[in-house]
Amino acid sequence: MRAVVYDGGVACRDVPEPKAEDGVVLSVRRAGICGTDLSIASGEYRVKFPIILGHEVFGTVWRAANRSSLVGSRCVTEINFGCGKCEFCRAGFRSHCVKGEALGIHRDGGFAEFVATTLDNLHVVPDSISDEVAVFIEPLAACIQITKMAKIEPGSTCAVVGPGRMGLLVIQLLKRLHPGRLVAIGRRGAKLEMAHRLGAETIDVSEVESILGGAGGTKFDNVVETTGETGGLEEALKIVKPRGTIHLKSTHGLPATFDVTKVVVDEIRVQGSRCGPFDEAIGLLDSGEVKPRELITHMFPLERCEEAFRVAASKDAIKTLFQV
Amino acid sequence: MRAVVYDGGVACRDVPEPKAEDGVVLSVRRAGICGTDLSIASGEYRVKFPIILGHEVFGTVWRAANRSSLVGSRCVTEINFGCGKCEFCRAGFRSHCVKGEALGIHRDGGFAEFVATTLDNLHVVPDSISDEVAVFIEPLAACIQITKMAKIEPGSTCAVVGPGRMGLLVIQLLKRLHPGRLVAIGRRGAKLEMAHRLGAETIDVSEVESILGGAGGTKFDNVVETTGETGGLEEALKIVKPRGTIHLKSTHGLPATFDVTKVVVDEIRVQGSRCGPFDEAIGLLDSGEVKPRELITHMFPLERCEEAFRVAASKDAIKTLFQV
Repeated sequence: MRAVVYDGGVACRDVPEPKAEDGVVLSVRRAGICGTDLSIASGEYRVKFPIILGHEVFGTVWRAANRSSLVGSRCVTEINFGCGKCEFCRAGFRSHCVKGEALGIHRDGGFAEFVATTLDNLHVVPDSISDEVAVFIEPLAACIQITKMAKIEPGSTCAVVGPGRMGLLVIQLLKRLHPGRLVAIGRRGAKLEMAHRLGAETIDVSEVESILGGAGGTKFDNVVETTGETGGLEEALKIVKPRGTIHLKSTHGLPATFDVTKVVVDEIRVQGSRCGPFDEAIGLLDSGEVKPRELITHMFPLERCEEAFRVAASKDAIKTLFQV
Repeated sequence: MRAVVYDGGVACRDVPEPKAEDGVVLSVRRAGICGTDLSIASGEYRVKFPIILGHEVFGTVWRAANRSSLVGSRCVTEINFGCGKCEFCRAGFRSHCVKGEALGIHRDGGFAEFVATTLDNLHVVPDSISDEVAVFIEPLAACIQITKMAKIEPGSTCAVVGPGRMGLLVIQLLKRLHPGRLVAIGRRGAKLEMAHRLGAETIDVSEVESILGGAGGTKFDNVVETTGETGGLEEALKIVKPRGTIHLKSTHGLPATFDVTKVVVDEIRVQGSRCGPFDEAIGLLDSGEVKPRELITHMFPLERCEEAFRVAASKDAIKTLFQV
């Protein structure tokens, strides 16, 4: 089969079809490129290779040994594969399994014609959710997880630093929480314009200091950091209120430098969060409460993966998908 | 009066007596040198100077214009001076006042014969608490604040990285919470030995990797970072469990570098905390539940402040006090 393999660089290659773990293989239809994929491709987020990338995957069930009735079903897959035995698996946190593997990071992923997964990880997608939109179930679940790890109170003030492929989903989620204020901070361009259309106030990052800065300047109860860049945390620190929360989402794989003393003196919470509840994400897409289709700016076949990765990393691309 | 002035270096000088704000002046008897003082003196934690240092202060009321009955009372003072009007002051968080000043950091502190404070900041010290022990009310309150900002569950596992003048108080507090396990991690020496006497298991920092490390190695629900060094957060990150909390206390004033991606992937909480409840600290010292006297390794007059700061920064010193 064809697959996008990372082996120090990214290329479309012919590789053997996956063996079915737990008997489930998906025939991939669409898959999304996210920030982690880009960081792996650039060599910043280090993984063992060769590996097939991709963990935002939608397809149909091709083989399901123990549940043949599932064959042909439209499905997405969660990305964490646990041992089922360690303290985290037993507590229901498969994503933190001590021997755990993540799709497209530690084991072959979904930028391919076929991908192996488990029954446990499978979620059936209602017909009301189109193929393109189904690709957003995984990243939307990851955005929902922000509020699972640190509650965001209705009426609290919120800023999203880096309104890109993830930040623009976060803005839609935050909007539903009736924030006291919702501000997107980024570089002027298509993404910031979309943040505006989605109902956020927008501030160009170069103007943060003059608009929000200084002693007694406007600060936020919640700052969601979705820049994918090492400087994102420092940007967030500038505008978070004392006793506020910085919700970290960037997984660029690089060390970041920040002002520990400010975190202590201002009693700030820096909270990481990762994978989230697929069922809730499916519900929000099914009801139309979150509308991701407009975020799709590019679509490529697997064969054009080098171009796809280049475009996905460019300033004006928001969401880049593979059509398989 | 004599006072320890920081003006790029530390020296004992003759300076005017303080004017009484809100009519309260303390005659200082004892004052403790903490990590923040050392970081200011070394130039790493930047403050406007000249300034009299010191914010762990015990003394007797010398002047109290509106409450003359207080004159002669044994007292400690909180360190935050707020405007009383901003959103933080109104919410009871004077320590986060937008125009706030902290004693010995933004306004003249207590390494002096006299120090000015306010009635609001004053706490009377019961006679059962000796002068030396009273100096620990401020730092002990700051340690209590750890559990106010992020609850530490009884039975959870705890590690203290950097069991020094603050970490050895933290260990006594954590012991009271009946942790599932309590480990102190530091460099072999007097401090680690005291951590052991206080009931913690001890691990030399050079052995952390071999004793706790590797995939599936022992990790902790709570890691309290009291190293006062920029590398403390990275040390803490090595041993915190997924979904665990790093409680940050170091205010060294320097930027620190850490692995943001690990915080996200492991869904870790990094929580800053600063000043805490004096009343609770007084209660714990009064009842003898926390015993800080053994931490005092050195005592100096103000005139020997340069030596006092040098000793306080040395490896084997735990708590260094000024006797005024």
